[in-house]
Amino acid sequence: MPYSLDSVDTPFVAMDLDVVERNLQAMQARIDALGLKLRPHTKTHKQPWLAARQMAIGAHGLTVAKLGEAEVMLEAGFNELLIAYPLVGEAKAVRLAALMARGLKPVVAIDSREALETLARAAAIVDQPIRVLIEVDTGFHRCGLRGPAVIELARAVRQAPRLLFAGLMSYSGHISGQGDPAKIQQIIREEDEILWQHAQDLQACGVPVEIISIGGTVLAHYLASPTHATEVRPGIYVFNDLGIVHSGACRLDDCAARVWSTVVSRPAPDRAILDAGSKMLAFDGPIEGSYGYVVDYPGWHIRRLSEEHAIVEIDAGAPRPDIGQRVAVIPNHICPVINLQDRVVGVRAGQVVSTHAILGRGLTR
Amino acid sequence: MPYSLDSVDTPFVAMDLDVVERNLQAMQARIDALGLKLRPHTKTHKQPWLAARQMAIGAHGLTVAKLGEAEVMLEAGFNELLIAYPLVGEAKAVRLAALMARGLKPVVAIDSREALETLARAAAIVDQPIRVLIEVDTGFHRCGLRGPAVIELARAVRQAPRLLFAGLMSYSGHISGQGDPAKIQQIIREEDEILWQHAQDLQACGVPVEIISIGGTVLAHYLASPTHATEVRPGIYVFNDLGIVHSGACRLDDCAARVWSTVVSRPAPDRAILDAGSKMLAFDGPIEGSYGYVVDYPGWHIRRLSEEHAIVEIDAGAPRPDIGQRVAVIPNHICPVINLQDRVVGVRAGQVVSTHAILGRGLTR
Repeated sequence: MPYSLDSVDTPFVAMDLDVVERNLQAMQARIDALGLKLRPHTKTHKQPWLAARQMAIGAHGLTVAKLGEAEVMLEAGFNELLIAYPLVGEAKAVRLAALMARGLKPVVAIDSREALETLARAAAIVDQPIRVLIEVDTGFHRCGLRGPAVIELARAVRQAPRLLFAGLMSYSGHISGQGDPAKIQQIIREEDEILWQHAQDLQACGVPVEIISIGGTVLAHYLASPTHATEVRPGIYVFNDLGIVHSGACRLDDCAARVWSTVVSRPAPDRAILDAGSKMLAFDGPIEGSYGYVVDYPGWHIRRLSEEHAIVEIDAGAPRPDIGQRVAVIPNHICPVINLQDRVVGVRAGQVVSTHAILGRGLTR
Repeated sequence: MPYSLDSVDTPFVAMDLDVVERNLQAMQARIDALGLKLRPHTKTHKQPWLAARQMAIGAHGLTVAKLGEAEVMLEAGFNELLIAYPLVGEAKAVRLAALMARGLKPVVAIDSREALETLARAAAIVDQPIRVLIEVDTGFHRCGLRGPAVIELARAVRQAPRLLFAGLMSYSGHISGQGDPAKIQQIIREEDEILWQHAQDLQACGVPVEIISIGGTVLAHYLASPTHATEVRPGIYVFNDLGIVHSGACRLDDCAARVWSTVVSRPAPDRAILDAGSKMLAFDGPIEGSYGYVVDYPGWHIRRLSEEHAIVEIDAGAPRPDIGQRVAVIPNHICPVINLQDRVVGVRAGQVVSTHAILGRGLTR
């Protein structure tokens, strides 16, 4: 029986299930139209039922960062997972092997000999193959190699027992925060050129490249033919957030997840305090001077966050909030917000219809 | 049986129990020497056993922000709690009443008529008194009133059935981030003057002020006689963090909680990637250009954080990390780090001796 959002104590996260479904369908249609495969990153939603929905409408597989996340998805029945994070060390090898013994068929991205050896060890423990991508640095300067180091590592993968070189992966995270479509398109072109150059170099050495995997919701929105990528790993699109709006890749109405909060203090005419602080909204750099967008109140700006307080500055002439009033906030970056929740509520037509455990929360190992 | 830290998979938080005990004793001695009462804020550690230790060595009571935190501490047997956060609305009134029916004897800080009415409602439900502090804005400009509004609200408290006006509370959060002792001492003096002026004004109107409650670990360190405060509510001191070191209030060796992580990638000579990102280290503004202090490696700087990656820049001439190497990081702000953990390990003399559930984690309501 649906019930009113007003009956849920604040602060809490509500996801609009109709908007979620629209977002899922739109991204699948976009990637299908490009002739690519969709391998959604589950770190955004951390919920197996949403992973199931992504698979049901056409996703080719799922992406996780950490083994703990892989375990949650494996337990929910998904055994084709891309682990888009370097695994290093004996403990990780043993844990990966344990998941493979339970049915996991992993593809794992690496950028070092040490990560290669970790995978070789896991593969040896269970005597099963592991498909390997090499992460290429396309300009974000986080993980990833470039040039001869990529070729050398690919050859080492091919020489390692049970490891199967499958291709290249990149994440152009420097696209985040960009609000200029021309710059975004330039980053996408540069990434494609870098990846294609490496793929050609590999093929010239007799190393076939089957997968070229690229990531990100903003990228997926602006991606156009022709591209040399074979698959895309967007995560945020399931909910969207203010960062995606800022990039021009969606509208505010496409943001499915909102933090509901209450005005708990009005200490000054131009200041209000919301009961959702960084423990709810997380702490990703301000967008246009605000740590989130207060729905229906464009003249309210979340200038600062404490752990339990959002400090809102109210423009002259903007509607003045009353203490006790409830407002919805669209977070700047939804992924860390979901990571802070034990559960969220599902909403249709403004009514609560369900609650959902965030089974992937807090899994940093 | 103690075991090696090396056997715990990274990333994880370790707290040195000897340093914790030293920190607890030092703060209690400091506040005792000033002739004040200590009412530690439990939001930092979120662990009833540490609250018990604080009470055992002399704390006068405990502080929490949210009702969920109050419930955890009440369940652990602590019923004298200061709720240092405005409670607003019927849902909060009913929840507070439910805790009072289970034995909670609350002191609650308010800064509005609406919060007063919420407390009056809770008190009426269980027909029990509630002691009330009024929050004064001493310059942080978050919650809190000043001037005649304080007097007016105090009078309203005294007129409300079952509400007992007990005094004033402030939190000079603008002390955080200050590295200059002279400026810190000036903020402390200004806060004391503002609070004392309000207390005198109240007493002139026949409203006695029993409690003057001030907050913060940095403040507690620099606080000197004479002060008009009657009690102090530091939280971070149990662990300390880089922010406290930066203020001059403790040394690196006094930081009891560390995030252990592994170097998982070395994509460039001057760059290393740690497996602890913002899901472990949280995202409080950089201190001296770094999102945390890498213990033993002052030439390493955590320049950026992704959710699962710390991007470390390595000074020319600094030791170069190997992939697989484990390092400890002292977080900039420990409270949100603890809030991200389901459990942490206890360490003595470099060996793991215990694990501790973070029972107060994620309690934003």
